[in-house]
Amino acid sequence: MVQLPEQPVTSSPAPSAVPTSADVARLAGVSRATVSYVLNNARAVRISEPTRRRVHEAAEELGYVPHAAARSLRAGHSRMVLMPSPNVPVGPLYSRFINELQWALGRLDYTVVQYAGMGLHGDAAARAWAELRPAAVIVPGAGLGPRGVQILKRSGARAVVILGPERVEGAHTLLLDHYGVGHSAGVHLLARGRRRIGVVIPQEPGLEYFSKPRLEGVRCALEDTGAAVTELPLAYEEEAAARIAARWRSLGLDAVFAYNDEYAMLLMRALQDDGVGIPEETAVVGADDLMLGRLLRPRLSTVHIELPSGHGLAELVDHVVRDPGSVPEAHKVLGTRIVHRESS
Amino acid sequence: MVQLPEQPVTSSPAPSAVPTSADVARLAGVSRATVSYVLNNARAVRISEPTRRRVHEAAEELGYVPHAAARSLRAGHSRMVLMPSPNVPVGPLYSRFINELQWALGRLDYTVVQYAGMGLHGDAAARAWAELRPAAVIVPGAGLGPRGVQILKRSGARAVVILGPERVEGAHTLLLDHYGVGHSAGVHLLARGRRRIGVVIPQEPGLEYFSKPRLEGVRCALEDTGAAVTELPLAYEEEAAARIAARWRSLGLDAVFAYNDEYAMLLMRALQDDGVGIPEETAVVGADDLMLGRLLRPRLSTVHIELPSGHGLAELVDHVVRDPGSVPEAHKVLGTRIVHRESS
Repeated sequence: MVQLPEQPVTSSPAPSAVPTSADVARLAGVSRATVSYVLNNARAVRISEPTRRRVHEAAEELGYVPHAAARSLRAGHSRMVLMPSPNVPVGPLYSRFINELQWALGRLDYTVVQYAGMGLHGDAAARAWAELRPAAVIVPGAGLGPRGVQILKRSGARAVVILGPERVEGAHTLLLDHYGVGHSAGVHLLARGRRRIGVVIPQEPGLEYFSKPRLEGVRCALEDTGAAVTELPLAYEEEAAARIAARWRSLGLDAVFAYNDEYAMLLMRALQDDGVGIPEETAVVGADDLMLGRLLRPRLSTVHIELPSGHGLAELVDHVVRDPGSVPEAHKVLGTRIVHRESS
Repeated sequence: MVQLPEQPVTSSPAPSAVPTSADVARLAGVSRATVSYVLNNARAVRISEPTRRRVHEAAEELGYVPHAAARSLRAGHSRMVLMPSPNVPVGPLYSRFINELQWALGRLDYTVVQYAGMGLHGDAAARAWAELRPAAVIVPGAGLGPRGVQILKRSGARAVVILGPERVEGAHTLLLDHYGVGHSAGVHLLARGRRRIGVVIPQEPGLEYFSKPRLEGVRCALEDTGAAVTELPLAYEEEAAARIAARWRSLGLDAVFAYNDEYAMLLMRALQDDGVGIPEETAVVGADDLMLGRLLRPRLSTVHIELPSGHGLAELVDHVVRDPGSVPEAHKVLGTRIVHRESS
């Protein structure tokens, strides 16, 4: 809890009235239209440099800033790109992608806001987003259906782009199919001569969306090879890993695909503490190619995941905003490759 | 780059006109005011259940959602809480805090949006945030000065709360002083009998804001004790860690405070690879108390950091929004304690 102290440390006067563009116009001795042209950088309108300067100085003196919503009400559309925050913890890979995307959209003069989900799903979430009247919505993950897309479009969103596991009618879709992550790991372990392969299923809520297709990918890689998959539910806790390690030899596995590098670190440590030889007895493969995996001994083999370019996605969004009638498309964009180190 | 395929996979009709509250009123056979009362949940106004249902059904049929900005223009204030995204990568500790804060603000009926900074600083950033006319702004980190606070307040923000290293006039401030993190580490290493203490200074941009006060905290803990500090600039790369490890014995250090657990993992691995005994020759202390630190051998000693409660901060924001004339206060909110394991 934040404790309010008895003695305040700093102080300031109460806020005064909010200045309007009319106040700026009066002080600068110009019309409100001129104020609007100058402060919204309307390049098409010719206004002399001294006038521009007078308007800027008046705005600065009064502390006036234009109102984005009022401007977009007048213009009939906004420059806001809304991204619901993903409702699972995101790794450094995804953070980097989002940063690149936001940067690129900023360069194209969009204002990017991330919207905190707070438990809204499906159509209810779409209605909440629509209230902000964004020009474009980029939705990470599953959950938005064709009705939600319609709600957004009817409210004026010109582009709806989904980064998810499957196509949604009416929206552009970048297919992030995690199937390929598991498939790469399965193919690699087979090639290393492994036949009894455990697959870690994280028990943390929200991760099914990634873990199910990864498991499916391993299964498919092993089909008709005589190799078999064993599912290994695992919570991200030392005690849970120790429990699996204690019964490891009774499982009779010679390899494990550990969902990602963090679960791989957790399980590998528990196996090593119990004297299981890595990779002699059990090969271990993670995913994400974190730097930390290279610090382990043996160094961790991993599936490197390639997200789409944030710049490319920004250009796609801009393209659709300019031409909202364009036919929605779906693209597979998740690249994977195995990085073979010492643990497999 | 996103490649646009030759053959689109899905299709939808072009968007039609955006429905308005007047359309809803016409279809439901009520006034626009009634539509507004029902859809904005104005509890003070008595409207019969059948009428409410008719309005909701009409809105649903037409795909109408209220316009948050239009509503806040009418009301003179919004329910939006704007949080600029921090411009450094955030760890799991801070992510959890932000999630808790967003959730708590959502429960208090605020809409939380994170604003992508995209290189804006100081007053320019404040003006960009002000364009969205938020009711409250929560600013993580340093950089916003008294003028920026004034810009936000003049544009109608009722609460400006800074989570940063120092007080800013006119704003409520939660002081996150990282001095204490280094101080805890320094006191601990002294108590363990160490006298020549290295302090890792990460070379990644944006981290000075944390690393400088942490270094200062170690220095102060060592004052008048005869113990000495050596600064160790380190980039988050294996090669950089290996270079420090190669000249480790010439440095003559008996301990290192490694900035955080991730830098500690990186440096400890390099030292171990070079045969430096941990903790016999060199004690290592990290910070953040990540689970990964417990997986190391020896287990990593660390400074556990306690952020303020997200619920408490949400209540503070709500309190100030309701009473914007309240006197700005500053609170120290960062708690620290050493977690002694095996590496020190």
